[in-house]
Amino acid sequence: MTDSRDDNASGKPLTGAGRSRRDVLRFGSIAALGAVLGGGALLGHATPALAQAGNEGELAPNDPLNILIVNYDGGTLLDFAGPSEIFHRLPNTNVRYASLHGGSVNLEFGVVYGNTERLADIEKTDMILVPGGSDLTAPMRPAYQAQIRRLAESAKYVTSVCNGSLVLAATGVLKGKRSACHWAFINKLSEYGAIPVPDRFVEDDNGRFMSGGGVTAGIDFALRVAAKLRGRQAAEFTQLVIEYDPAPPFHSGHPRDASPEIVAMVDKELPGASKGLARIPGVR
Amino acid sequence: MTDSRDDNASGKPLTGAGRSRRDVLRFGSIAALGAVLGGGALLGHATPALAQAGNEGELAPNDPLNILIVNYDGGTLLDFAGPSEIFHRLPNTNVRYASLHGGSVNLEFGVVYGNTERLADIEKTDMILVPGGSDLTAPMRPAYQAQIRRLAESAKYVTSVCNGSLVLAATGVLKGKRSACHWAFINKLSEYGAIPVPDRFVEDDNGRFMSGGGVTAGIDFALRVAAKLRGRQAAEFTQLVIEYDPAPPFHSGHPRDASPEIVAMVDKELPGASKGLARIPGVR
Repeated sequence: MTDSRDDNASGKPLTGAGRSRRDVLRFGSIAALGAVLGGGALLGHATPALAQAGNEGELAPNDPLNILIVNYDGGTLLDFAGPSEIFHRLPNTNVRYASLHGGSVNLEFGVVYGNTERLADIEKTDMILVPGGSDLTAPMRPAYQAQIRRLAESAKYVTSVCNGSLVLAATGVLKGKRSACHWAFINKLSEYGAIPVPDRFVEDDNGRFMSGGGVTAGIDFALRVAAKLRGRQAAEFTQLVIEYDPAPPFHSGHPRDASPEIVAMVDKELPGASKGLARIPGVR
Repeated sequence: MTDSRDDNASGKPLTGAGRSRRDVLRFGSIAALGAVLGGGALLGHATPALAQAGNEGELAPNDPLNILIVNYDGGTLLDFAGPSEIFHRLPNTNVRYASLHGGSVNLEFGVVYGNTERLADIEKTDMILVPGGSDLTAPMRPAYQAQIRRLAESAKYVTSVCNGSLVLAATGVLKGKRSACHWAFINKLSEYGAIPVPDRFVEDDNGRFMSGGGVTAGIDFALRVAAKLRGRQAAEFTQLVIEYDPAPPFHSGHPRDASPEIVAMVDKELPGASKGLARIPGVR
C-alpha cells in the first residue's frame, strides 16, 4: 500500500542533491560493465546482456517479461508510446500490442496504430498495461472488459496510464486498490471501488498494481516499473538513451501549478475536471 | 540565432520562482475565457475557440497551420508521439503524416504506424517535422531526401526532433544553421554543415528553424513551438491536458547528470556516443 517515490518525495524533478542516493549504487568498474554488453544497435534492440550487469530488479536477470499493451479505438498515442519506448529497451522483455479484433486501431485525432494481435489469442501475460483515451466507449464494452479482466486476473503485474485505470477499475480488478489516473478523471475511480491517489505514480500490493497519472506520466511510470523489475541500472540506462531530462517551458502541467485561468479553460471543456470528475464517453 | 529558453535559462524544470513571469500574462477574466471556448470534447479535438482567447502567438488566431510529420521505416515512435499529442490539440492546426510510399511504416521494435500519405502527394506544408530513428537508411536515400528537401525549402518552419536533424541536415537545408540533436549524435551535424548546439530546444533564423534534442525532448520542443506560434495560453492549456509535470525518478537523462558507468554502457553500445559521434545505419 505504498506510493513510492524513492529519493524524489516532492514529486518534482531531482536537483543535484538527488545524486547522493544514486551514487551509492555501484555495479563494478566501467571495464567490467562494458565487457558484459553485446554489440547490438542500442537504439534498435533491447540489450540482453544488460541483464547480467549488477541487476537489482525483483525479476531474475534471465526471467523473461512479457508485457501486453491493450489498444482500442479512441485511445491516446502518447499514453503508451512513452512506456513502450522504455519497455522495448529492457533486457529479456517482450512487448506486444493487442485489441479486441486485432489489426489496426483508430486512436484519437485519426492516428492509426497498426498490426495489433487479438486479445482472445493471448493466453496469458506477465504484465498488462491499459493506456487511456479520449473515448472509452470501446474498452468499456462487455467483450473488451471480459478480455481485460481475464488477462489482468492472471497477470503478475496489473498496470495503467492515464484514465486507462478507469477501464481496469470497471472490470472489478482494482476493487480496494490504490490507483493513479489523469487528474481530470481521478475521482471517478471511486465509482468502481478503487481508491484514487492523486500522484504521478502509484503502487499497491507490493507493486502487483502500478499506475501512472495523465498522458506524459507514462514515462515516469515506466521508468519506475523498469527499475523495480529490471533494476535501477537498466532504468537509468534507458533514461539516458531517451534523453529524458525534461525542461518544461511553463509551470502548467498540473492544476496545482497552472494558472487559474488555464484550469478554468480545461474545466469549461471538460465539466467536472477540476473536481477530478470530468465526463468522458463510455463512462457513466 | 538565439537558443531561447524563456524564464528557464538553466535548462532545468522551473521552480515556484518561474511563476512570476507567467503571472504577468493575463488574458481576461475566467468567465470571459470560458465564454470563448466551445463544447467540443477536450481530449478528442483541438479547440478552435482557443484561437480567440488572448493569443500572443506569431500566427494570427485564424491562420491555419499545417504540420507534416515525416515517417520512415526505422523511425522512433516517441520522437513524434510527443509533438503530435501537443500539435493535434492546438487551434486551427492540422497534423498530417507522410512517408515515401504512403501506407504503413515499420518503426523500430516492430511497431507499425499506419495510414501515412505519400510525400509526393503533398504539395506544400507550413511546417515540416522530421523525427529521428535508430536506422536512418531509409530517409537518407536520395528519393526521401529529395522529398524532404522540396517540402523543407518551401516550408515556413523547418523542424526536427532527435537525430531527425541529421536527416534534414543531409538535404542541405541546415547549412550554417544552429540545430539540436540527440546527445549521442549531435556532432555529426557538422559533417553536413549545420552548427551543433547541445540544448534541448534550439532555434535559428527567428524560429524558421526549430529543433529538439533526443526522443523525449520532442515534448519540450513542441510546447515551445506551440507557444511561439499559437500563444503561451494555448501551450499552457495543452501542457495541463497532457499532465506534463515530469518527475523523473533518476538523474540520468543526460550525460552531464548520468553516472559515468551508465554513460560508459551507452558508449559501449554506440561507439562514439560520448563524443556526440555515435555511428548509426544510414549515416556515413
